[in-house]
Amino acid sequence: MNRALSIRSKSNSRSGPSSSSSHGRKAFSLASLRGTVQPELSKRLYRLIKSENNLIAAHEAAGKERVSIATQLSEWGEQTGDEAISDISDKVGVVLSEMGEQEDSYAHALDESRGVLKAIRNTEKSVQPSRDGKAKIADEIAKLKSKEPESTRLVVLEQELVRAEAENLVAEAQLTNVTRQKLKEAYTAEFLATIERAEKQVILAKHGLRLLQLLDDTPVVPGDSARQYVHGNQARQILNDAEDDLKDWRLDTGLLEGRGQQQDGGEHFVSTNTSPVRSPKTPALQHHNGNGVTGHEREATENGGGRSATGKEVEV
Amino acid sequence: MNRALSIRSKSNSRSGPSSSSSHGRKAFSLASLRGTVQPELSKRLYRLIKSENNLIAAHEAAGKERVSIATQLSEWGEQTGDEAISDISDKVGVVLSEMGEQEDSYAHALDESRGVLKAIRNTEKSVQPSRDGKAKIADEIAKLKSKEPESTRLVVLEQELVRAEAENLVAEAQLTNVTRQKLKEAYTAEFLATIERAEKQVILAKHGLRLLQLLDDTPVVPGDSARQYVHGNQARQILNDAEDDLKDWRLDTGLLEGRGQQQDGGEHFVSTNTSPVRSPKTPALQHHNGNGVTGHEREATENGGGRSATGKEVEV
Repeated sequence: MNRALSIRSKSNSRSGPSSSSSHGRKAFSLASLRGTVQPELSKRLYRLIKSENNLIAAHEAAGKERVSIATQLSEWGEQTGDEAISDISDKVGVVLSEMGEQEDSYAHALDESRGVLKAIRNTEKSVQPSRDGKAKIADEIAKLKSKEPESTRLVVLEQELVRAEAENLVAEAQLTNVTRQKLKEAYTAEFLATIERAEKQVILAKHGLRLLQLLDDTPVVPGDSARQYVHGNQARQILNDAEDDLKDWRLDTGLLEGRGQQQDGGEHFVSTNTSPVRSPKTPALQHHNGNGVTGHEREATENGGGRSATGKEVEV
Repeated sequence: MNRALSIRSKSNSRSGPSSSSSHGRKAFSLASLRGTVQPELSKRLYRLIKSENNLIAAHEAAGKERVSIATQLSEWGEQTGDEAISDISDKVGVVLSEMGEQEDSYAHALDESRGVLKAIRNTEKSVQPSRDGKAKIADEIAKLKSKEPESTRLVVLEQELVRAEAENLVAEAQLTNVTRQKLKEAYTAEFLATIERAEKQVILAKHGLRLLQLLDDTPVVPGDSARQYVHGNQARQILNDAEDDLKDWRLDTGLLEGRGQQQDGGEHFVSTNTSPVRSPKTPALQHHNGNGVTGHEREATENGGGRSATGKEVEV
């Protein structure tokens, strides 16, 4: 089978936490010093949560750039003085801008999921002293047995060990429970957010393609009279369609029905994962209100009021 | 209508290139000095192309972080000593890693589209001298007419102006053609790439959700014997399904059929936009080969060879 069933690096197989020094990182970098403050048990997750932060920042940056590009595209298109380019670039800009907003929502959903992982890390942190305590007592007993096998302290220590073991048993069970529940919750949320972003961006991209198809790119001959742009109404209708489709979008709830034999998990899923899905917020396009040209003004422009492709060129 | 039909900022309406100084940017920042080197006509697109670069970098970073998180998740899961967590986290890691690869492919597609925009910018750059030349001659004629209306140079200048106008007419037609074609091509490619990334990530996320549903997160009681993990085969099958679904993925070619009345544009679309779609490369999961545990080794681990959830805890 020439396909990966695992992504673990081979060098690290089964060696546990002690292998972290083999990653070739410098001993005294700030990052590694910080990591060292974490108890051994929670180190890996501590780093993973930091990486999730970088991931979130990257998607946030992508969303921001997308929105900025959308405005730039619209303003560039206006400046070309070509009626068709001006209208299409502006409306494609609206679509791109909404894609950027979806990217930003995705980043926020990832951030919520990251918060859930922290619950595991915190439990790992709190279980470490329990493990350490148990090990320390066992150690003491072993030493004492070899040095002073008759010591009366041995009885006390054995009692302490039984108590420490009982306490640790509870701690480990808590760790198992929290780890499984929160891992499932965190990545279920990430996958659902991925689906939401993807499906909404597909809607937007499809309508974006429709807009571009309104742009007649058959070559003009020098001196041709400027072709009239007649697709203003169609272009506006496409934005309406995009808005309607986004409003109608729902998460396929079938995704959360147990498909394996793990029926137990099903209920937990549904209860813990309503937050990333959220109420389908009145979507899209609305946030542009106020900083755009009003519908009325656009109307005037579209009917050719006051400018034409040639008119612009004469001015220059 | 309380919805945006435009994303242009109001302050900038119809003022054209001259408004670029009103953006409140500092006069002597390095960025603005660089921008100044560009002819007026191509300045906006020059900046937009720079912003596209930031967008690409952001998606690249997101892809890289995603792949890194995937490995970290897998290695963290192994270290928990919980058989179920170990297997599920590893396979979820495979899915996340492939999602990261899709993000990276997306960044590359955006980069190709950015290259197409450069063709517009370069044409804009080359048209600027033609506009300037024409304007300069017209200016000279106007000055001369007011100062020496009888000058014989006027005849020569008028002839020069006719030539300059003819040359500019060609240049402007070229600009219109290149702008329309390349704008359509560039953003068609971006939208198609968006659809490809989205649809593939939906496939991956859905199988990721299936994996997580194999994780039994009903609470354990302290001292319970470790639950046997029995979903190894199912988990492996889910990765197989994900790979098959990715292989079967095709772009909906109906997306490129003209839906508006602009049938002319249809053919151009198909011809210019084969590159972002690419042949559906044998996808997914394959790049993990070699650095992962082999199928055989996994098999041994899955059958509980040599480790159990409790075994790990005793060691510590």
